[in-house]
Amino acid sequence: MTTPVEFWFSIASTYTYLSVSRMADVIRQTGIEIRYKPFSVRSIMVEQNNIPFRTKPVKLAYMWRDIERRAALYGLPFAGPAPYPLKDVSLADGVALIGAREGWCLEYAAAVYRRWFLGQQDVSEDKQIGDVLEEMGQSPDRVIALARTEALQNDLCAETERAKELGVFGSPTFVVGREVFWGDDRLDDAISWARQGALRSG
Amino acid sequence: MTTPVEFWFSIASTYTYLSVSRMADVIRQTGIEIRYKPFSVRSIMVEQNNIPFRTKPVKLAYMWRDIERRAALYGLPFAGPAPYPLKDVSLADGVALIGAREGWCLEYAAAVYRRWFLGQQDVSEDKQIGDVLEEMGQSPDRVIALARTEALQNDLCAETERAKELGVFGSPTFVVGREVFWGDDRLDDAISWARQGALRSG
Repeated sequence: MTTPVEFWFSIASTYTYLSVSRMADVIRQTGIEIRYKPFSVRSIMVEQNNIPFRTKPVKLAYMWRDIERRAALYGLPFAGPAPYPLKDVSLADGVALIGAREGWCLEYAAAVYRRWFLGQQDVSEDKQIGDVLEEMGQSPDRVIALARTEALQNDLCAETERAKELGVFGSPTFVVGREVFWGDDRLDDAISWARQGALRSG
Repeated sequence: MTTPVEFWFSIASTYTYLSVSRMADVIRQTGIEIRYKPFSVRSIMVEQNNIPFRTKPVKLAYMWRDIERRAALYGLPFAGPAPYPLKDVSLADGVALIGAREGWCLEYAAAVYRRWFLGQQDVSEDKQIGDVLEEMGQSPDRVIALARTEALQNDLCAETERAKELGVFGSPTFVVGREVFWGDDRLDDAISWARQGALRSG
């Protein structure tokens, strides 16, 4: 019996492409239980004055190359740098929160990232989110209206506060009990921790 | 025959503790050729307005816990958060550059990090660097005087410029041909790249 892994993420994050795209395989291979925790990473990063890439062209160029190499490592497609940064992702993240409640969060997140990274679309636009929902057989009208309600956006804020309390400051972050693992490259560590309370040896 | 791995580092960096401390074992296990490339990471980070931890207490706390967990993974000792940030590391990095030329760079860097991380000493102080050199059987007077010469500090600046040209923006960074791998957690990737021009499959 392993501890569940909380997967805290926001659609604003580029590295989260790797995590959402390989998550189905990881679950199949490890049997790990994932709890999907969408939150607003941007509001935490603004508050903490954490600007990882936008104003740092050298680091930004590195980020895309790093993602490209790691996508190849995982056997994931990559189509070059995608539109970045996205504008307002409160709708995209709000829909993810609805998906987490209704059981289609991973399917949705993987589809949004395919559209963003492989289709090179700006998924901060309503139309793109609507198209994703349509393809999934969800009602765009129902889900988008719900995601825009004050209640749902308040819930997203509450989840973001909870993330902050846990010490989450970026996306993706994996939380196992009280241990925080930041970055797609820490997913394997989080799984080790969930299984044995330590990182697997070298 | 594998490509050599350039190991760009500065004593200012905390995560570099992991790399210098496990490097001797990594070399023994992999037979990889490492070229030691001390540079001034701080001048690049100032220029690029890259402040990863100093003004970010949540990220800083995470960093120490992350280093602690990964030290345990590698079987390295860890004695809790060390003095951070260090003041002026131009002497410490200058001595590393002399070490790279004279063949004792890794021995020196590992000893400096032991003193900083396990001895909890501020290794931006001359006395600490002198003591490290003394223990190693190097003449503190000779090496520190040489490290303080304008010629040596100019050489350190030139190395830093070379780092910038390669796209290096942090420490540790591993460069294989034209591929840049940033972070101790990319050392294994750099070695894979040196051996087969790709990351090893998952």
